[in-house]
Order: sequence, then structure tokens, then C-alpha cells
Amino acid sequence: MAVPHFTYPSAYLQAFTTQVFQHFGVPDTDAAQAAEILALSDLRGIESHGVARLYAYHRKLKAGDVNPTPQISIVRETPSTATVDGDNGLGLVVGPWANQLAMRKAEAVGSGWVGVRNSNHFGIAGYYPMQALEHNLIGWAMTNATALVAPLWSRERMLGTNPIAIAFPGLDEPPIVIDMATSVVAYGKIEIARRLEQSIPEGWIIDADGNATTDPNAMPAGGALLPLGAERAHGGHKGYALASMVDILTSVLSGASWGPFAPSFALQSSAERASRGQGLGQFFGAMQIAGFRDSTEFKQEIDAWIRTFRTAAPAAGTDGPLIPGDPERRAHAQRSIDGIPLPEPVVQDLRQIGRDIGVAFDP
Amino acid sequence: MAVPHFTYPSAYLQAFTTQVFQHFGVPDTDAAQAAEILALSDLRGIESHGVARLYAYHRKLKAGDVNPTPQISIVRETPSTATVDGDNGLGLVVGPWANQLAMRKAEAVGSGWVGVRNSNHFGIAGYYPMQALEHNLIGWAMTNATALVAPLWSRERMLGTNPIAIAFPGLDEPPIVIDMATSVVAYGKIEIARRLEQSIPEGWIIDADGNATTDPNAMPAGGALLPLGAERAHGGHKGYALASMVDILTSVLSGASWGPFAPSFALQSSAERASRGQGLGQFFGAMQIAGFRDSTEFKQEIDAWIRTFRTAAPAAGTDGPLIPGDPERRAHAQRSIDGIPLPEPVVQDLRQIGRDIGVAFDP
Repeated sequence: MAVPHFTYPSAYLQAFTTQVFQHFGVPDTDAAQAAEILALSDLRGIESHGVARLYAYHRKLKAGDVNPTPQISIVRETPSTATVDGDNGLGLVVGPWANQLAMRKAEAVGSGWVGVRNSNHFGIAGYYPMQALEHNLIGWAMTNATALVAPLWSRERMLGTNPIAIAFPGLDEPPIVIDMATSVVAYGKIEIARRLEQSIPEGWIIDADGNATTDPNAMPAGGALLPLGAERAHGGHKGYALASMVDILTSVLSGASWGPFAPSFALQSSAERASRGQGLGQFFGAMQIAGFRDSTEFKQEIDAWIRTFRTAAPAAGTDGPLIPGDPERRAHAQRSIDGIPLPEPVVQDLRQIGRDIGVAFDP
Repeated sequence: MAVPHFTYPSAYLQAFTTQVFQHFGVPDTDAAQAAEILALSDLRGIESHGVARLYAYHRKLKAGDVNPTPQISIVRETPSTATVDGDNGLGLVVGPWANQLAMRKAEAVGSGWVGVRNSNHFGIAGYYPMQALEHNLIGWAMTNATALVAPLWSRERMLGTNPIAIAFPGLDEPPIVIDMATSVVAYGKIEIARRLEQSIPEGWIIDADGNATTDPNAMPAGGALLPLGAERAHGGHKGYALASMVDILTSVLSGASWGPFAPSFALQSSAERASRGQGLGQFFGAMQIAGFRDSTEFKQEIDAWIRTFRTAAPAAGTDGPLIPGDPERRAHAQRSIDGIPLPEPVVQDLRQIGRDIGVAFDP
């Protein structure tokens, strides 16, 4: 609670991040691209995916676990599909490359669908469909992730938090941006509760035996996150099915490491290199709006949709429904002006990284 | 509980259903197609979508609310996308037509994505991706439905139970078939609890004011189903986002009636004809497996996936995780031998329909 925060302009953090990537031989354009995604994450208030994760990128690059100059290649394709091999590059570089390919295919034949293997953590999933918005495309993105989630009725960590993102442009209204993990909550929420020594609601995690618990310490003691829906009576089988769908589309289809074999992002990876498939898997889609309907008409109708849902009657004790993407858009507007607040431990990490690469952070 | 059941061979019900559709001028091939989907639903144990719904089809056809001989047409297309106008035909006929189109496009250019407007209820969503399995395609299906679900923090019914279905073929293992509503539970579960005068778990529905309730009678009194995740702490915003995604892909993209304007299936529709868009909306996808990876390799890896997940450690007090589609496949095997059990009120409905069309049901 009482952790002090320090605030930095987004541009300052982005420039520093770029230098970190450059230091390890990531080409300038790629370094800028990677830094842009981390910066967007912090601007949108998704702090777990911003510079707070730079220590992990730094460590992986330093250990030679990630290839700073990947030869990204298409290993198979049709006019509207492809599989891309990321050559163990930064997911923040491989992801945008594959997403561009999906968008080019969509512009050529109406839609494009690209699976990726041999990639790494690609930042916030929402970044990718947001790119598509500018091209009158509906974009999709999914990624696999380190196994932290138990299937319904298992106590084993078998699936990642496997997010699904998709975005729809409005005309006068801001876009609808959906970017959601398929677990009940993100891992970060368990970490925060542990740090604050607070209990958590039942239905977030199970303990090592698979029993319900409100103790966040059960997670590092071998517990697992629950899939969206939590238990059978509330649709835990549905969250499990969604996470499985993401696992298969991102990783079985592309030849990446699926399920429990997905490589770890935060931990040292050499010991636990996947025994099945190659690297982390992702899946991108893009669909031409005009492939279905006049795109201005579509955007007008999205405006009407947004206005209709925004004015739906509030439930007792609430201010009424939000539109998916509202909280992140508000954070973006605020943080563009106020800057990005970072907790002290993250600032310490950045200082340490700065010393390591010879570029002082906030000297 | 004590409602008597009568059991019929699936083929008998399917033949009767075909005759009902034929009676109203549905062409033979279309009538057989429609009856096949309802029969599959009963075989798979999804009773709410089988002959138990024939009374609604019967009433709609009799009232002239559904067009028995639609001129289904493509109103816009690219090599990998299309929008189809169902001409107010049976969804059980329009759906397969559009799904075929998606599959043909996938076979030609790698993937096919087809939005549908001016359709009606299309049966179980899982039917469509199951068709794709036989063609080495990964199929998707989504449909809009009558608004019964409240967005998180609203008390208004704004969205349908909007299912998502997708299926993946194994080689020696049976396919993974995902077919899930994006609400916590189906409407049918509330109806069953009402009939049995039982309370329901908190987190299934809200009452007319938007408060949590365990009384199933709150639903007909103006309550609403909750989206998957139920409340904020357990990810209710995610279920709301998924239902919104389905609403937009099926209906805003195709020009069908979205959200609260979606036409009603069970009720008389003339009075409440949508004021926005045309009819019910659907969305179909098909992707060539070989557009991403050798299809035999993919199926072998799906087999490995299934075996890995099937042997994941069980949670305390459970028999371990299922694979999506397991319960329906088991029901199918059982019911193919034992027949379809129908509760007495459904049998009475079928007898009434039989008298109406001059074909005796179970005389």
C-alpha cells in the first residue's frame, strides 16, 4: 500500500527502453517497435506488461536466451493464412511482423490469419488489433503463456492466462477494444495480495491439492490460477475451453510449445526448455470490414451500439456498464498528461539495468 | 424431478421432424438438413436445442414468421469473406448454407469467414465446426440470440447467451469440440429450478434491480442472466466482453439486429420486430489446417494434447479434467443405442404438432 511511486513521462521511459534493446544488438527499428509496445502498455494502465517487465527482457537478452537479430520467416502459407517462425526473436518484434503479414493478407483477399512459433512474450495483446483499426480492419490477437492455470477438475498448472484480444472501430466514438485473459484474474493480483498480506476472494486460485483457498501464499506453494468461471457451477469449464482454444490456435497449429510445455517468460528458461514444439506461440487475425459491409456504415452502427450500451440501466449500486476498453482509454488520456507512476522497486530495477548497460536511469 | 420420460429412437424423431418442416413447404433437402441438426442436438444431450424446440419452429412456420423457401444470397464478398442474407429462412437451413460457403472459401484461399443477417435460430453452434472436421478444416460458429444477459453493472437484458463454437480434429483421438454460451448458465437451468421450486446458486442471475439473488423466479420478474464470470471480482467484465464480441461479429458486421434488438426465438415476433438491422445474425469461420501445418502432424499433436490433458492430476474430490466435447460425445454414444428420453410435456407438444399437421406422433 505504502510503496512510494515515482512518475516519469512516457517518452522518457520509452527512450530508455529503446536504449536497453539497442544495447543488446536489437536493430534500431526493432528496438523502437519493442519499446513502443511496452510504452503503450504503461500508458493504458496495464502496468504488469510495461517497463515493470524490462528486467525480464534484460535478463533474457543478457543470457543470450533471446535472439536480438532474428531471421523471421514464413514457413507455410496460403493467400489468407501463414505460419511464421520467429527465430527466437523478441515477441515485441516477431508479433508486429506477423500481425503486419495478417493485415497485408486481409487487404489482399479479405482476411489474414497468421500462427507464430518460436516467439517470445509479445506485450499486451490489445496492441495488435489496435494497429488493425487504422487500416479499417478488425484485428485479433492471442498468445500462449507460461502454464499457471489449472483445467477445471485438475490441480496441475497446464495452461497460460492465454489472452484474447479483438477491436472494432467506431466512427465518432472511440473503438471497442477487448483484451482479456481467460483466467479469472491475472497472476499479478495474487502477487499484490501476497505483498499486502491480504486474503483473496475464493474462486481465484486453488491450492496444491486442488482445493478452494483464500490464501494467496497457496499459489507459490504449488497452487494454480482458476480459469474464467472458476468452478463447474459458474462455468469454469468454459474458461478452461477458451484457454484451450487459445493454446491450440497459438501453439499446436503453429508448432510452438503448447500447454505445460510453454516456455517461461519470467524465469530462466534453459533448464525448462520445452520438450514439445518450438518456443512461444501466437495467433493473429485481420478481417477487412469492407469484406462484409461498407466500413462507414459499420462504424456508424458501432457508434449506435456503444451509445445503446452506455445508456443501459445501471445495476443497483453501480454507475452503469462500461464499454470494453473504457478503463484503458481513460488511463491513456490521464497518463499522457500526468506521466507513468512506477513503484520504487521497479525504479530500482531500471536503475540497475541502466548501470548494467551504461545508460543512467533517472540519474 | 418426477416428470415421466418416454424414449424414442433418434431416427423416429428425425423422420417426424422432417415431416413437420415439409408440411410447411420447406423443400425436402432443407427439411432433412434442419431435422438432422435438431437430431444431433438430442443425441449429444443438448436437449434444449433438440425436438423440445420443435413447437417454436412449428409456431413460427405456421404464423408465416419464417420463410420456408428462402432465396439465400451473397450480398458482398471477397475471396475469404462474405455476407449472406438468409431471406428470413430457417436458421437450420441458412446456417449450413453459410457454413458451406465458409468451407469452400477456406478450401480455395486458406480460410473463409461468413457473416449472416436475416436468419433465424440455427440449432447447436457445435454442429457447424463438426462439419468442418471432415474436411480437414478448423471451423468456428457464433450466433446472436434474444437478449437475456445483462452487461456487467447493468440490470437490463442487452445481450443473448451468444455461444462460441470451435472444433479441432485428432488423429486417433476423438475431436475436441468446444461449444459454450458466454453466460454463466443457459436460460434452461433457471427454468428447471423454477419447475422444481429450488433455489439457484448466487452468480447465475440478477433481479430486476440488478441485485444478486438465488430465487429463479426473479428471472421472469424482469431479472437477467449474468455473463460468464458473474461479477467484477470474478471476471464478469470478460464474459460481457465475449458476449459483445459475438454480438458485433454476428450482427453488426452482417447488418443483422444486434443486442437488445435481436429478434426473439421463442416468442411471437411481429410486435417486437427489431428496429435496427435485419433478423438474427450469425458468423462462421473455416481455416485449412494445411494452411498452417501438415494436417496429419497437427492431428498427431492434438492426440498428444488430449492425452496430456486427460492425465493431468485430478483436483481433490474429482475424477480429473475432461476434454471439451467429452460429455456430448458420451451422450451421443449412449443415446444412439438407448434412444432419446423426452419429458412428457415435450411428448405432448409433439403429439399436438402431429395432430396439427396430420401426421400422428407415437400414436
